[in-house]
Amino acid sequence: MPERIMPSSDYQKCLEFHGHECPGLAIGFRAAKACLDWLKEKRAEDEELVAIVETDACGADAVQVLTGCTFGKGNFLFRDYGKQAFTLFGRRSGRGVRVCLRPGALEPAARHRQLMERIQRNQATREEREEFGRIHRERAREILEKPLEELFTLKEIFQVFPAKAMIEPSKQCQVCGEPAKASKIQIQDGKEICRSCLGE
Amino acid sequence: MPERIMPSSDYQKCLEFHGHECPGLAIGFRAAKACLDWLKEKRAEDEELVAIVETDACGADAVQVLTGCTFGKGNFLFRDYGKQAFTLFGRRSGRGVRVCLRPGALEPAARHRQLMERIQRNQATREEREEFGRIHRERAREILEKPLEELFTLKEIFQVFPAKAMIEPSKQCQVCGEPAKASKIQIQDGKEICRSCLGE
Repeated sequence: MPERIMPSSDYQKCLEFHGHECPGLAIGFRAAKACLDWLKEKRAEDEELVAIVETDACGADAVQVLTGCTFGKGNFLFRDYGKQAFTLFGRRSGRGVRVCLRPGALEPAARHRQLMERIQRNQATREEREEFGRIHRERAREILEKPLEELFTLKEIFQVFPAKAMIEPSKQCQVCGEPAKASKIQIQDGKEICRSCLGE
Repeated sequence: MPERIMPSSDYQKCLEFHGHECPGLAIGFRAAKACLDWLKEKRAEDEELVAIVETDACGADAVQVLTGCTFGKGNFLFRDYGKQAFTLFGRRSGRGVRVCLRPGALEPAARHRQLMERIQRNQATREEREEFGRIHRERAREILEKPLEELFTLKEIFQVFPAKAMIEPSKQCQVCGEPAKASKIQIQDGKEICRSCLGE
């Protein structure tokens, strides 16, 4: 039986954070929920969970909101593979689960794509923009209602994570004078220089 | 006159997203507010704003929540300089502002650091953990109340941003069978292979 997921308050939180409803956010929402359910975990207050996201597209925002693995907390790892794939680990157990969108899980939707391209080239009429918004939201809702097993493959994974990062002192760059983490400062010609002044 | 910033609903949103109160989050909160005020902008629903963060520490989460420039939306750029520095741009105007923590803006707080190290080595007593939590929150509140000009340097910046990313088709990796963005697939020995299978 397909599990029917209505726009819940969790989904509303994702929408509020991300700013708009779209298919990618819905994929991330289903993925994050699936991982949390599978691991029987709740949102990480601190760093109890670790997420690996293989995309920097919309779905990553739902993962941040739902799992509490956020870019600024050190428990959100990005691998630039361009895949709609998300892994969640319990830091203590090292037990994790990876979900990845199945090939062909989403219908091609040629009209959706055509409209997006017209919008991005600034050629779309107001009506076309509205049509695009409708299709965009409809596709998101379809994803919310699809049975999980039609959307994703799922695999158990074990991985040991290092201890949480230590607080690190900062040093002042001898070129720009700004403070930077000591480990990001390099010595060049006897001067302590930050990465931006080194042009990295 | 120092502007007194009480824990507002915006700050609460940052706390809820990040999961705990800490000095880094407070720095990001003040920085993001300062940038939005200076640019006279509101939170980006879509990609009206672009943020550049020079740290992946806690403050980056406040920037995501307040500015609407989020990791998953394509308007959040990370430069790994280890600096408490944040830049916000209006995409149309290209007009931006960068704020960077001043050297010495925060008192050294030896006790705070000592406790953090004991906690991270699992040597802290319950009382020490509680003391740490208190100092952590006190320091955050101090940052919320400090005059902006004592915290940050501020600089106007202009930069032109490329158009928003186009939707990209995906291809199926011929090794693992998973779909990935076409631009992340490489051909090796006549096969189309994704980055994870290539071991990148």
